[in-house]
Amino acid sequence: MLFADKLFQAIKKKSSPICLGLDPRLEQIPDFIKEKQIKEHGKTFTAAAESFIEFNKGIIDACKDLVPIVKPQSAFYEVLGHEGIHALEETCSYAKGKGLLVLLDAKRNDIGSTSAAYSKAFLGKVDLFGEEKENIFADSLTINPYLGSDGINPFLEDCKKYNKGIFVLVKTSNPSSGEIQDLKLESRINQPKAGPPWAENHESRTIFEEVASLAELWGSDLISDSGFSSVGVVVGATYPEQAKKLREMLPSAIFLVPGYGAQGGGAADTLPCFKENGTGTIINNSRGIIFAYQKNEKYSPEQYTEAAHAATLAMKQDIEQALNK
Amino acid sequence: MLFADKLFQAIKKKSSPICLGLDPRLEQIPDFIKEKQIKEHGKTFTAAAESFIEFNKGIIDACKDLVPIVKPQSAFYEVLGHEGIHALEETCSYAKGKGLLVLLDAKRNDIGSTSAAYSKAFLGKVDLFGEEKENIFADSLTINPYLGSDGINPFLEDCKKYNKGIFVLVKTSNPSSGEIQDLKLESRINQPKAGPPWAENHESRTIFEEVASLAELWGSDLISDSGFSSVGVVVGATYPEQAKKLREMLPSAIFLVPGYGAQGGGAADTLPCFKENGTGTIINNSRGIIFAYQKNEKYSPEQYTEAAHAATLAMKQDIEQALNK
Repeated sequence: MLFADKLFQAIKKKSSPICLGLDPRLEQIPDFIKEKQIKEHGKTFTAAAESFIEFNKGIIDACKDLVPIVKPQSAFYEVLGHEGIHALEETCSYAKGKGLLVLLDAKRNDIGSTSAAYSKAFLGKVDLFGEEKENIFADSLTINPYLGSDGINPFLEDCKKYNKGIFVLVKTSNPSSGEIQDLKLESRINQPKAGPPWAENHESRTIFEEVASLAELWGSDLISDSGFSSVGVVVGATYPEQAKKLREMLPSAIFLVPGYGAQGGGAADTLPCFKENGTGTIINNSRGIIFAYQKNEKYSPEQYTEAAHAATLAMKQDIEQALNK
Repeated sequence: MLFADKLFQAIKKKSSPICLGLDPRLEQIPDFIKEKQIKEHGKTFTAAAESFIEFNKGIIDACKDLVPIVKPQSAFYEVLGHEGIHALEETCSYAKGKGLLVLLDAKRNDIGSTSAAYSKAFLGKVDLFGEEKENIFADSLTINPYLGSDGINPFLEDCKKYNKGIFVLVKTSNPSSGEIQDLKLESRINQPKAGPPWAENHESRTIFEEVASLAELWGSDLISDSGFSSVGVVVGATYPEQAKKLREMLPSAIFLVPGYGAQGGGAADTLPCFKENGTGTIINNSRGIIFAYQKNEKYSPEQYTEAAHAATLAMKQDIEQALNK
C-alpha cells in the first residue's frame, strides 16, 4: 500500500489528523527520568539519550490511540551526537512497533548522489557488506526543494520501491519564511515556450507556488487509491491565506501543517489546509503535547504522560470543532 | 580569530585552496581495511563505521600538508545510523588534531528554535546536565537558505561566539539546480519602497542572486581582518558564468566550490570564483582524491593513501597553472 493510503487510513481509523512531534529537550524532561539515568550512566550523553528514549516511550504509549503518525525532529537528537541518533533509532522503532507511522523531520537536501545516501539512510535500505539492512526506520521524510529535481529523484525512487513518502517544504511556518518563499517571479505569459515542463506559461506567482507546482509534478507518479500522493507538502498554520491558495493548486497533496500551538496557529488557521470533506491534512504539535505537564499545574512531572494524553485529546476536539463549524 | 581568517591563513600557509571531501562509501573502501574490521566485528554497522574511520585517517595523514580544510559529507555517515555518526565524530576530531579545519557538509535548515539545536550540535556547545560539552566538532557548516533569516540567526550567533563559519547554498553544482535557483524575480524598480532591507529596488534578478544578497547581509557582521566574511557561499564549478556574476556581487564572501572533477568541472571553470589576487575560494574534491586508487592502475588498494596524495598534488598544480595563466 502506498504511503499516502497508509496515512489516509490511519487518520480515518483514529479519527485524528494529529501529527505528534517528538522533539525532546533535555532541560524539559522530567527530573525523575533524568535522575534515574544519571544514576546509571553518570552525567553523560548516554544518560541524556536514554532519558530521551524513556521519555518518548511514555509519550508514545500515552498518545498512540489518538494519533496516526509521530514526527521526531532530527535536530533534537543530533544535538547528542551518535548517542542521540541511537535514541532516534530506538524512538522510531518503538513507534513503529506500536502501529504508528513515522515521519522523520530532517529537511534533507543535496545533489543526486548524496540525496541517494540520505534516502537509503531513512527510507530505503543500506548495503552492508552485501546484505540489505534497514537502519533508522521512517515511513516518510521532510525534504528541502532548493536543489531541484535531481536532489529529489532518489527519494521518489525509494517512495515507489518501499511505499514511503516525502513532504516537500513549500511555505514554512516561521516568521521569515517569506524572505525567499514569498518573492514574486517574473510573469512568463507570452514568453516563448521553452525549458522544462513545469515552466508553463502563467501569470506571475511566488516562489512557494512554483515549488508547489514542482511538488505536484514530483508526486504525480505516486497517487494512491485515496486520491492522495505520497509526495506531500509542508504548509505552516501561521499562513492561512497562502494555505488556501495552495489547497486549490494541489488537490492531491497531503499537507503537513506545523505552527499549531507554540508557534501561534489555532485550529481555525489550519482549516484552509483541509479539503472540503475534511481530509488531506496532518497538523503537527510538538511542545504543546510532550511538555504539556509544564503548562498545567494539575500535573506533576511524574504525570507528564497523562498531561500529554489530555493535551492531545483537547487538540483533537479543537480541530473537530473547527471542522464542524 | 574569526573563521574566515583561520581559513584565509590556512590556505596561504599550505599554498592550497583545496577542500578535501571525506565522503566514504563502503563499497569503494579497499578490501584489506574492511576484511580486518569484519574479522573483529562481523558484518556489522560497527565494522562499517570502523572501516570509515581507518580509511579517513589514512587519507587525512596522506593529504594533511596539501589541504587547509576537510569536508565530510554528513549523508555518507548517516547511512550507517548512530555508528556512522560515531565515525563522523572520530573523523572530525582526528582532522582537528592534525591541524586541519573542518567543514561539515550537512546543508541543515529549519525554523529558529530548531536551527538553534543544529547549531549547538555542530558549531556551538551542548548543555549536558548543566555542563557545556562539545559534540561533533566542526569549524563550519553548509546551510540551506530556503527558510530565511530566522533559520540562519542561531548559526550566526554561534559563528560570533565560537569563531565558526557557515556556507550558504547559493548556486549549487547539480544539473537541476536551475529549476528553482535560476528563476527570475519580478523587477522591483519603481515599486514603492517597503519591506525588509534586502528588498531594495533593483532590476530583475534570479533567486540565487537574491539569496546571494541575503548571504552578504547575514555575513556583514562577521568580516575578518583578511576582508572575508565567516559567512561564505556555495557556488558550483559547473556554472562558471553565474560564478562570475556572484564574485562581482560578493567581494567579501569565501566561495566553496563543489563540482570539480567527478561532477565535470575543471580548474578553468573555477577561475571566476577567485578574486583577482587569487584568493577567496576553496575548491572541493571528494571522490577524485579519496578513491583515486581505483582510477589509476599504478596503485594497489593498499596504496590508496599514496594515490590520494598524488591526486591532491596534481589538483593543486592544476589550479596553480590555471591561476597563473
